[in-house]
Order: sequence, then structure tokens, then C-alpha cells
Amino acid sequence: MKEILVGLIGFGTVGSGLAEVLQVQAARLAKKVDTVIRLKTIADNRLAALPERFNDVGFTKNAREIIADPQINIVVELIGGIEPAKTFILEAIAAGKHVVTANKALISQHGAEIFAAAAKAGVEIGFEASVGGGVPVIKALKEGLVANRILSIMGIMNGTANFILNQMTDHQVPFSEVLKDAQAKGYAEADPTYDVEGIDTAHKLAILMNIAYGMNVSLADISIEGITRIDPVDIAFAREFGYRIKLLAISRNHGEHVEARVHPTMVPENHMLAGISGVYNGFYFTGDMVGNIMLYGLGAGKMPTGSAVAADVVDIARNITHNSINRVPSLSFRPEHLTPRRITPIEDLRCPYYFRMTAVDKPGVLSAISGILGKNNISIESVIQKSRGQKDAVPVVIMTYEAEERSVRAALAEIDSLPICTDKTVKIRILVDKQDGVK
Amino acid sequence: MKEILVGLIGFGTVGSGLAEVLQVQAARLAKKVDTVIRLKTIADNRLAALPERFNDVGFTKNAREIIADPQINIVVELIGGIEPAKTFILEAIAAGKHVVTANKALISQHGAEIFAAAAKAGVEIGFEASVGGGVPVIKALKEGLVANRILSIMGIMNGTANFILNQMTDHQVPFSEVLKDAQAKGYAEADPTYDVEGIDTAHKLAILMNIAYGMNVSLADISIEGITRIDPVDIAFAREFGYRIKLLAISRNHGEHVEARVHPTMVPENHMLAGISGVYNGFYFTGDMVGNIMLYGLGAGKMPTGSAVAADVVDIARNITHNSINRVPSLSFRPEHLTPRRITPIEDLRCPYYFRMTAVDKPGVLSAISGILGKNNISIESVIQKSRGQKDAVPVVIMTYEAEERSVRAALAEIDSLPICTDKTVKIRILVDKQDGVK
Repeated sequence: MKEILVGLIGFGTVGSGLAEVLQVQAARLAKKVDTVIRLKTIADNRLAALPERFNDVGFTKNAREIIADPQINIVVELIGGIEPAKTFILEAIAAGKHVVTANKALISQHGAEIFAAAAKAGVEIGFEASVGGGVPVIKALKEGLVANRILSIMGIMNGTANFILNQMTDHQVPFSEVLKDAQAKGYAEADPTYDVEGIDTAHKLAILMNIAYGMNVSLADISIEGITRIDPVDIAFAREFGYRIKLLAISRNHGEHVEARVHPTMVPENHMLAGISGVYNGFYFTGDMVGNIMLYGLGAGKMPTGSAVAADVVDIARNITHNSINRVPSLSFRPEHLTPRRITPIEDLRCPYYFRMTAVDKPGVLSAISGILGKNNISIESVIQKSRGQKDAVPVVIMTYEAEERSVRAALAEIDSLPICTDKTVKIRILVDKQDGVK
Repeated sequence: MKEILVGLIGFGTVGSGLAEVLQVQAARLAKKVDTVIRLKTIADNRLAALPERFNDVGFTKNAREIIADPQINIVVELIGGIEPAKTFILEAIAAGKHVVTANKALISQHGAEIFAAAAKAGVEIGFEASVGGGVPVIKALKEGLVANRILSIMGIMNGTANFILNQMTDHQVPFSEVLKDAQAKGYAEADPTYDVEGIDTAHKLAILMNIAYGMNVSLADISIEGITRIDPVDIAFAREFGYRIKLLAISRNHGEHVEARVHPTMVPENHMLAGISGVYNGFYFTGDMVGNIMLYGLGAGKMPTGSAVAADVVDIARNITHNSINRVPSLSFRPEHLTPRRITPIEDLRCPYYFRMTAVDKPGVLSAISGILGKNNISIESVIQKSRGQKDAVPVVIMTYEAEERSVRAALAEIDSLPICTDKTVKIRILVDKQDGVK
């Protein structure tokens, strides 16, 4: 039986997860795959040696030993970040190796260059683990939904942000406190910017858009807003109106232009995305044939991500064995059919809005605010103004009917400059989605 | 470019859905697949001719014309039922055709014979559409989760039953009334037995178990209980305790033996499966590497099922083009590694229970019932006994701690034979599942 040899660059959390998956599942994989998959060498320059359980695997501090090894078929890059990951991947491709990576930052920003190099060299790039951890969301889009025009992509794509919002919801604790707790538990990084500012989510949205629409979106085109300004009071008001606040990635396909945005969103409490708690992710697609579909699971973590990387390794091992390399194009569409698409300007967005103004507790406040909204064609659906009689500023909460982002921005700029408003208005977009069964 | 020709047997709901999917998506598929997929002939003996929009497709009343056509590569069987579907499929295999089917009754009961014939002939069998309509659940299990030991399978696998339970929940209407409404709306068949008695769900569970565990389960081994005895009062009590009643398929993998059961289940209201409404399906797997994962979508219907059949056709077309037939074994495990497994006797099951006894409203009733439960080692967690003072029999509702099915059956047999009990006890098993994030 043919043997496929794997070289692993990066023995951190996910790298050690992959090594463990391949070791634990070896007997099971042998029963499923008509080839032997063997982890030959692991490279990590921060390590002196591998743990004893991996003493049948070679070790080097130098990644280029793996890239130069003529026996190795598949190079797995799990060091993360742009460099030196990018250089290693391009060198591996040039050396005729197939590549598997979980590197969402790299694939979302330099995917085009990497895929072009791979196509030229006739090798495969597996990147299932770059989106959704162990959830086979890329395979579902590329293969399971192959016969669909994808009408929209929505999702909770960052477990850390979801965990924080959830804790804020369950315990009515401010963002900063929950973040500290999440960091202590290992659910958030020391520098949580990528997670809480929506950047990590945008990386994943970009990858999914490229696959779903056959395009090459630039990260700079995605409108990104994080969760740091969300207050427990917003979460409480959301509940009162029947919503949960989630950090969503949203892209609707309007044909010649497509939306691309990441922001905190009020999700109706009976929507499937509202029920996703803790560090879980949910990927919610609408296809013109299949209707609504969701994939749910752990979007990060050692073993789940290791599971996805291993699935890519198996996929490529099968293609090597069967001489069917590039049986499925990297981005679903064949490279010559990738076409640029215009991104819908965020100012053109139309949706209902939640506003929380902070205003002094005086008569005439609501009249001033509603006057400005009316002037900008923003219709109020409901208002909550509580705690009258207090000395300090009080929240004025307004839910609107569908309005245009451009008008909303203009109105809020004017409202926030009123002397009666003592803090910037918090604005949260409200999700409108039909989940009804279609036959 | 190579052309792959498809013959379709059966132009009913799903058959016409497939024809439409292939027509509507032709240009998109041409951009994704490096081969042309063309529907050459449709066979249906109930039809005089095809609708005009398909006038570029051949028509015959005789399925065997398709099977005998040397140009046709893939035969799609969408007539459903056991015969003549089985004969057509075996004849197509013998003629060297690859086969795609959505026939869950056939695959769950005669899969072994069909897969063996296909392996012998060196052809592929695609059956994604037999489980979960448009949801790519089989591909996820076989490929995305390839590097996992599947620890459990749980799911809402029948949209009709879920729709009925949902309507009963939302409107407090009895089963029979909702069924009539569902039949009028086309959500339930004239003969709803397969859907409401859990048989359709058991077919799908059998297929998933065979893939997940590499076995060949007999339908007769699955313990099946339908939803016809569920009353709106049970749904109301479930809500009071924080549960939703769902028709679940459940299989837990205990290694040398595996559970296989379909029954109404009390699902904690914060569990992902509790939130699945209408005709939607949810497939909830736990893998030893990936943790919990769920796939959600429309489990039936013309276009969703057509989407899944088309995905199988594309998969096989790619394998024909790349000479990579049987790149992935039909049941995930290679045929020689399929091994029989013992099914856990339902009497060995341990879980908490909900009981609704119907008893005359007299003193001593609760004492008699609880005495029998205690004698059988069944501990009561809580009791609701309402409407005291009425003349008629009243419900006595009991939630238990974990108990053994064997003891429960013995206890209920004794309780139901008490003169004070005027109707058979309704028994609903309660789901215990940890959904917590694992890192």
C-alpha cells in the first residue's frame, strides 16, 4: 500500500493537535483510506525535542529540512501569522509539495498569490481549518452546495467574541470584566484585538465569500465593527425586545455587488444564530436551491482544528493515490472563472436599527432626537425612555423601521452633537431573516 | 472537454427538482467542474411527455432504455420505494453505470447488497439525498469528520413530525388536528405512517450509523416509537420543566455495542436541537476529536433534495473525469473493514423519564404510584398533580432521576394495571447532553 508522508511546520496548539489526531486515529484512518498516512517530520524552532509519545516522528528546528525532503508529499503549515508562514508555503509549493494550512490571516490576505502558485505547480492547498475549526464548512460550500447560487452568508465566526457576549448576557457584567475572565480561562488571547474587534471574523468572511461567489475580496473592503462598545444595558434592552446581540459576519449577494460586513447585530431570539452559545460558531448560508442551511460546532481549539487539518490531509492523500490532484478547485470556481465583484458600500445598507442615546434627563429631549430622525427619513418603531427624575444622563433607546445607513450616520452625527447628548450613541443593526420552510 | 451523461429514472417531485437544478445551475457548474454534465434522458412511465422547458432532454416511458444506453455514465434513481427501484439500480450497476439515489428505504434495508454489487462492478453509489435532503450530512460524516471516532448521533430527521410537534406546541392543538392541517398544506402524506411513527427517521438513522461506525445495522434492531400518543398537555408540561418535545433519532457508541433508537424525547430548551422548528432537520454528532457539531437545513422538498442529488452527480462526474472512482468508500470504511456490532437492548437504556399517569382524583393515588416506582429503584425528581377536586381522572406528572428502561417498563406495567389508573401512562425519555465548549 502506498505511503503518503507528511511534514508539519509548527508544533503549537494546533500542530500538536494534528499530531495527536493522526496518532490516535491511525488505525481508523487505515480502515477508511486506501493509503498509509504517516507524519514523518515535525519542525519547530522554539522546541528542543518532541514529547516522548511522538518518538517515532522526526524532529528538526529547521522548517526548510521538511520543505527540502524529497520523500514528503504534504507540508502542513501551522505556525500562523503572515511571515515566515507565507515564505514557507510558497517554497513548499515551488518544491512540488501539497500544502495544508489553518492560517486564516494568510489565506484571506495572500490567498490569490498562494492559489496561483499552487495552480502553476499543480499542487493542492487545503485550508478547511482556516474557517470554523473542526466544522467542515469549506467542504460543504465547495462540494455539498456545489449546485447552488449562494444568496447569503451569515455567521458567528469567532468563539471568543461569542463567549464574551454570552457571559455579558448571562451575568450582566461589563465587557472589560468578562474579557479578563476569558483571558484567565484561556478563551481570549493576551492581545484580544483580532477577536473582539471583528478582524478574525472578517478574515473568515473573506475566505467564505471568495469560495461562495468565486471572487477575490480585499480585506480592506469589509466594513468591520467590534463588540467593545456593547454594554450590558444594550444586552438587557435587546432581550426586552426579543433579541440577542451577536457579532455577525454578513454578506448578501446582490448579483453585481455583494455585501461584506462584520458588526454586532441584534438577532431575533428564535433565529438559529441566536441560540449559539459559549465558544461555538455557526455558519448560516442561503442557497437558491437548498434554502437555509447551518453548520455549527467548535470554531477553534486544539483537537477540533486538528480534526479539520487531518481531513484535508486525508483528502489530498486520496488525490495523490488516485492521481486526481485538483479534482476540486481551491476556491470552488476554477481559477479562470474567478471574477471581481463590487462590494456594496456600507452607506447603502438598509435595515432596522437599535439606538441607545445618552441624554440629560430634561423635557424636550425625545422631541429633539425624534425630530432629527424624522428629518432623515428614519421612522421610529418603538422607544424606551426610563429612569426619569434622575440627575445623571439617562439612556434613550429607539428601535427603528428599515432605514438607510447613510441617513442613520447623518442623523446620529447631528444627535451626538446636541448639548443634551452626553455620550456617543450606540448603534446596533437588527437582523431581518426569513427562516420559514420552503418546499 | 469531456461530457458526462446522466439518465434520470423517475420524474416526480425530486426528479423534476434535479432536472431543474441541473438546468438552472448549468452555467455555474461549468465554471466549477472541468467536465460538462448533461441530462440526456428522463424515464417515467406515468408521463406522456416532459414539460416544454426540458425539450432538449430525451424522454422514454421505459427505464431500461436508460440502463441499456451505452453513452450514459450515471443513472439517477428517484422513483422511491423498494421495487422496481432496487431492480433498476442493480441492473444499472451490472451495466457498469454509476448510480445516484435519494432512496432511504432502499439504502437502509438493501444497502449491503447494493454496495457489494457496486464494489464488484467498480462503480459508485451516491446517496447523500437519502438523509437530510439538501444538508450535506453524509459528506460531512465521510470526509469532514473522517479523522474522528463518532461517539454519538442525534437528530431531528423528519420534517413532517417536527412540523406537527411544533404546531402542537405553538397552538396547543391535538395531534390529529395538526396532522389534517399538515396534510392539507402538503407537509404530510395521505398515509403519514412512515413520518409520524418514526420509520422514516429510523431509515435515516440506520444509514448514518452504518457510515459512522462502519457496520450494517438491520432496521429490525432499531427501537422505534412515534409521536401519535403525544398530547398537547405533555407539551405544556414539558415547557413548564424547561423542555421541548422532539422526535429524535439517537445512537450512542459504547464501543462493542451501540444504541439505536427513535422516540419522542424531552430536549432541554437551550439545546441546539430544541430550537429546530418547522420542517427543518438537525443532525447533531459528537466526535472524539471535533466535539459537538450540528448540521441544519431542509430535510426534504423538491429543490433542496435536488441540490443534494446534483452534488452527488458532480462528485461522481469528477471521479469519472479524474479516473478516481471509489476514491471515498461508499460507507466511509472500506468494505472489508465493515464489522457487525451488537445493538444495546433498549431495556438496558438509562436516562431520566417523564411520566404522565391518568388517575382518578382520590387520596392515596400518589402514594400508590410512588410506592411502585420506589420498589423498582426509580427516584422521583419532581411531581405535578393538578386539578384536585375534579370528578374525572386527572394527570399525575412525574419527572424521574436516571432510571433503567427495564425497571421503568416493569413499574409502568404495574401502575397501569392499578384500578385507580384509567389510561395507559405516557412515557417520554429525557435527553441529557453536555454541550459545553471543550477546548
